[in-house]
Amino acid sequence: MNPALPPAPVPGAPAVVLLSGGQDSATVLAMARHAGYACHALSLDYGQRHRAELDAARRVALALGAARHEIVRLDIGRFGGSSLTDTSIDVPTGSQAGRAGIPNTYVPARNTVMLSLALSWAEALGGHDLFYGANAVDYSGYPDCRPEYVQAFEHMANLATKAGVEGLRMRVHAPIIHMTKAEIIREGLRLGVDFAITVSCYQADEQGRACGECPSCRIRAAGFEAAGVPDPTRYRAA
Amino acid sequence: MNPALPPAPVPGAPAVVLLSGGQDSATVLAMARHAGYACHALSLDYGQRHRAELDAARRVALALGAARHEIVRLDIGRFGGSSLTDTSIDVPTGSQAGRAGIPNTYVPARNTVMLSLALSWAEALGGHDLFYGANAVDYSGYPDCRPEYVQAFEHMANLATKAGVEGLRMRVHAPIIHMTKAEIIREGLRLGVDFAITVSCYQADEQGRACGECPSCRIRAAGFEAAGVPDPTRYRAA
Repeated sequence: MNPALPPAPVPGAPAVVLLSGGQDSATVLAMARHAGYACHALSLDYGQRHRAELDAARRVALALGAARHEIVRLDIGRFGGSSLTDTSIDVPTGSQAGRAGIPNTYVPARNTVMLSLALSWAEALGGHDLFYGANAVDYSGYPDCRPEYVQAFEHMANLATKAGVEGLRMRVHAPIIHMTKAEIIREGLRLGVDFAITVSCYQADEQGRACGECPSCRIRAAGFEAAGVPDPTRYRAA
Repeated sequence: MNPALPPAPVPGAPAVVLLSGGQDSATVLAMARHAGYACHALSLDYGQRHRAELDAARRVALALGAARHEIVRLDIGRFGGSSLTDTSIDVPTGSQAGRAGIPNTYVPARNTVMLSLALSWAEALGGHDLFYGANAVDYSGYPDCRPEYVQAFEHMANLATKAGVEGLRMRVHAPIIHMTKAEIIREGLRLGVDFAITVSCYQADEQGRACGECPSCRIRAAGFEAAGVPDPTRYRAA
């Protein structure tokens, strides 16, 4: 089903885990913890509409035993270009099936910015491991969720840092990149993730209740159905 | 002497130029302007000791006609690991000749973070050009000032973005990477850069006056001497 994540080379080795507050990154955090890393969770406050996501990230970091959780404020929303930061652009609510190209929920280079911050933190910690919850199955429209992107980032990271110069290696782990949503959910449940505290919705309300209509909600709901487990998501009353 | 920068593919095409406030990035901004780009200057307020650098960046952006200048606040200093953000670590004041390895003024992955932000802005602008004032001659101790790093970042950027997916190309220009300090100074003067308003010192005072002792001051002073032009740097009284 899913390739087992190899154990940390040294138990308790520091790793930086990108944590959005959604189900995918929560599962990745659980996997990294299970593999024996001391997980430093990193979230980005980039002016996203769905502020409840950051509250969810805090709950997930605590619940899954992160060694530390940092929320870095960074106003990339001012650069524009995405419905997730620009309230003048509507988040799509229909199915995205049939829509060609990259969805307007794409935030320009956001994941590259986040991975770069993770790299900075990992290097300052003397760590060599980054964990990135990219998924190429459900997010095939996002260029930076593809395996070739992850490989290119890792290659760049090894030229950018002391570790690379000193002959060590920075590793960018993307352990769920080839998993289906159902597989991610099953793996998370196996490792004790409480998905009720995660928020995936692009336009969750302040209490973290999901709209049930945006592409992220649809993918999530279909995942619980495919996994054959109850959907613990709290939805707003219609 | 220096390879001429090719003109912008379309006059007035938007480009993002990393601008520190020092002499190198000022020269790069002048080169990009001269090549016909509409220059969007990007500076990072990362809690550096030398706050005068940001004042210098503002002056340089204005003087050289940047279309826009953004200073993004980002607290990567909290990750630690550099004398430029951690006041408990001394900035070295002697010559660095003979010191092996990477200087303690290196900020973990700072240039990768800055280039990632530039990539985000460029993509939001619909631009394809980033300008980066890396120099492999004087900063050979910094891994992210090497040409192979710049190439790896560009490769990653083309996998990360819409431009790459759509078959266009993101370009990371590092036009002074192989130039000596004297060549950079002569090129800047040819293009009208007023080096008196730039600040290179790692520990400049609030008025932007240089210490004259840190590695950056030494490299800068040697550059003016080698170029055979008067050094306009304002130094603190000894």
